[in-house]
Amino acid sequence: MPPDVPLTRDRILAAAEDVIRRFGPSKATVVDVARTLGVSHTAVYKHVSSKAELRDLVVGQWVEATMPPLRAIVAQPGPAPQRLRKLVDALIAVKRRRAADDSELFTAYRALAADAKSVVAAHVDEMINLVATVIGSGVKDGTFRTVDPVAMGRAVLVATSKFHHPAHAAEWGDPAIDAAFNDVWQLLMDGLCPG
Amino acid sequence: MPPDVPLTRDRILAAAEDVIRRFGPSKATVVDVARTLGVSHTAVYKHVSSKAELRDLVVGQWVEATMPPLRAIVAQPGPAPQRLRKLVDALIAVKRRRAADDSELFTAYRALAADAKSVVAAHVDEMINLVATVIGSGVKDGTFRTVDPVAMGRAVLVATSKFHHPAHAAEWGDPAIDAAFNDVWQLLMDGLCPG
Repeated sequence: MPPDVPLTRDRILAAAEDVIRRFGPSKATVVDVARTLGVSHTAVYKHVSSKAELRDLVVGQWVEATMPPLRAIVAQPGPAPQRLRKLVDALIAVKRRRAADDSELFTAYRALAADAKSVVAAHVDEMINLVATVIGSGVKDGTFRTVDPVAMGRAVLVATSKFHHPAHAAEWGDPAIDAAFNDVWQLLMDGLCPG
Repeated sequence: MPPDVPLTRDRILAAAEDVIRRFGPSKATVVDVARTLGVSHTAVYKHVSSKAELRDLVVGQWVEATMPPLRAIVAQPGPAPQRLRKLVDALIAVKRRRAADDSELFTAYRALAADAKSVVAAHVDEMINLVATVIGSGVKDGTFRTVDPVAMGRAVLVATSKFHHPAHAAEWGDPAIDAAFNDVWQLLMDGLCPG
């Protein structure tokens, strides 16, 4: 690295992503990232305190990149059932796109995520809250029954796991998967909407 | 093997299960099974035509062992919602028990199942039909809405994947998993039962 370019956390994370892409998840270490940047590992340690923190940051960045469009859907007005469908469709689309576009990188991040449990838990909590916000607005205006938005938000995400949970990525190429999703969605909407 | 004990398909499958248990899924071959039985591979080939057939039989036997209690629940009389819950509870219990009792063997069979797609598909079809039978009886006596039993049977199984699909086995130790299941189940029953 030329001495006039300051080392920042963002540059470290960009280098870490590059290392993971080129050499796999086991190379997401401070030493390997320092080597890629042409700096000492001491210089990297000034910004990232440990290998565990580096992995948390890397997984956090990977997950965060998917979130702005999902938050935007929740922030928009409109009937709750349609917004809920749009939100879950967008979640499914971003996961499938990542798995299809670069399956090796997708697998690498899955391996890293297994070691970044608190980051993943925070992501799941935010997803539950987004779904709960939409369900809550539907409960308020009567398009949904009087349910607990957080409990039912979690239930909707769990019940659609097959379509967005990375553990099911191998099934996403199945030509029958969209029909299966439509059946699940109908059942969930029958459960949420007043009879 | 003493010459007076006839070689049967059942003995071959028992030996194959023993080989998998001791040496892992990659050893589920005709040659390894023949060695365990102390017979020639030609003798085994008289009963099993290929390595692929051997694996299909082994996976089929592993899956079949779970089915009699599930079929018995469907055959019993009683209100459809309770029978449906009993059926899905039993499915979840048998998968969790297998994953907990011998996680190495569970993982071995998961690897084998990936190569025995037609056997797994037949198992999934039977599970869908069992759930559809219960839903159909509930539609008939009015405890469930007028839904397509097969489509909604598939939807119920898909929506409960987190709790019985082997891809989620790592999550089954989560102390919150039963609460999560209860929320999903409530949502599905709200969807199936008349408002």
